[in-house]
Amino acid sequence: MASAPPTGIEIERKFLVERVPEGLDAGEPIHQGYLAIADDGVEVRVRRRGEATVLTVKSGPAMVRTEEEFAIDERRFEALWELTNGRRLSKTRHLIPLDDGLTAELDVYAGAHEGLLTAEIEFPSLEASEAFTPPAWLGREVTGDKRFAAQALALHGRPG
Amino acid sequence: MASAPPTGIEIERKFLVERVPEGLDAGEPIHQGYLAIADDGVEVRVRRRGEATVLTVKSGPAMVRTEEEFAIDERRFEALWELTNGRRLSKTRHLIPLDDGLTAELDVYAGAHEGLLTAEIEFPSLEASEAFTPPAWLGREVTGDKRFAAQALALHGRPG
Repeated sequence: MASAPPTGIEIERKFLVERVPEGLDAGEPIHQGYLAIADDGVEVRVRRRGEATVLTVKSGPAMVRTEEEFAIDERRFEALWELTNGRRLSKTRHLIPLDDGLTAELDVYAGAHEGLLTAEIEFPSLEASEAFTPPAWLGREVTGDKRFAAQALALHGRPG
Repeated sequence: MASAPPTGIEIERKFLVERVPEGLDAGEPIHQGYLAIADDGVEVRVRRRGEATVLTVKSGPAMVRTEEEFAIDERRFEALWELTNGRRLSKTRHLIPLDDGLTAELDVYAGAHEGLLTAEIEFPSLEASEAFTPPAWLGREVTGDKRFAAQALALHGRPG
């Protein structure tokens, strides 16, 4: 029997993508900006995804996982967005069905990160993660490479 | 006629206090912890003041002043408070009436900042600020001394 991950742990693999696969959905634009990131990785960000605008607080990597979301109205979003200058990401997210009921989230970056494409796949178990054979359109794996974490992309831009 | 400050600008003076004045009110306990502080000074904090628990986002000093408050429930406060470890301030705030309708906010710090007492007075105009004669119980003025700003106290502790 496959071992389920401990509560709150996500098992994900992340890949660079060189060529966009055929037959993409229209995708959903995502704009996110970091208000502040602490040395221990606690982050506070605002995000617009489709029509939804939220503020999210997330714990750092060494902590018990905490994620608190606040729905915010358009006025608050605009006011807070102004405070994220220099710490922003804009991308369009496409969902791509894979075998075995898996889904890849393909992020096509825009703005300062134009040209960067990443795909992330979440797995129900460690076994499923290890058994996964990436389809040909997935390029170099960057799972665990901190330079491609959203925080790092927002603060430091696209890795050279 | 006294010139009112531009919208959103606070005119304040801050003093150290060596001896607590007589006849203090009971005061109100304030616990605040910083979730994260950005390099440009944008800060996100949670605070419990009396029964009220709020999350606040504030702009940095070089920005157009923005301050957004979110009332949060006890569960969220507790979850977020856990993320502020090493970035906390606890104090009791007393309000002390002064001449000319002014009020001093006397903060008596506890915990890691035990022994520190500061008093802040907000003025309706620059003229009122300049004309102010501090009563004898106010000690050394630390207006503008960044080491005594709440951010710095929370991150770096009491100045030596």
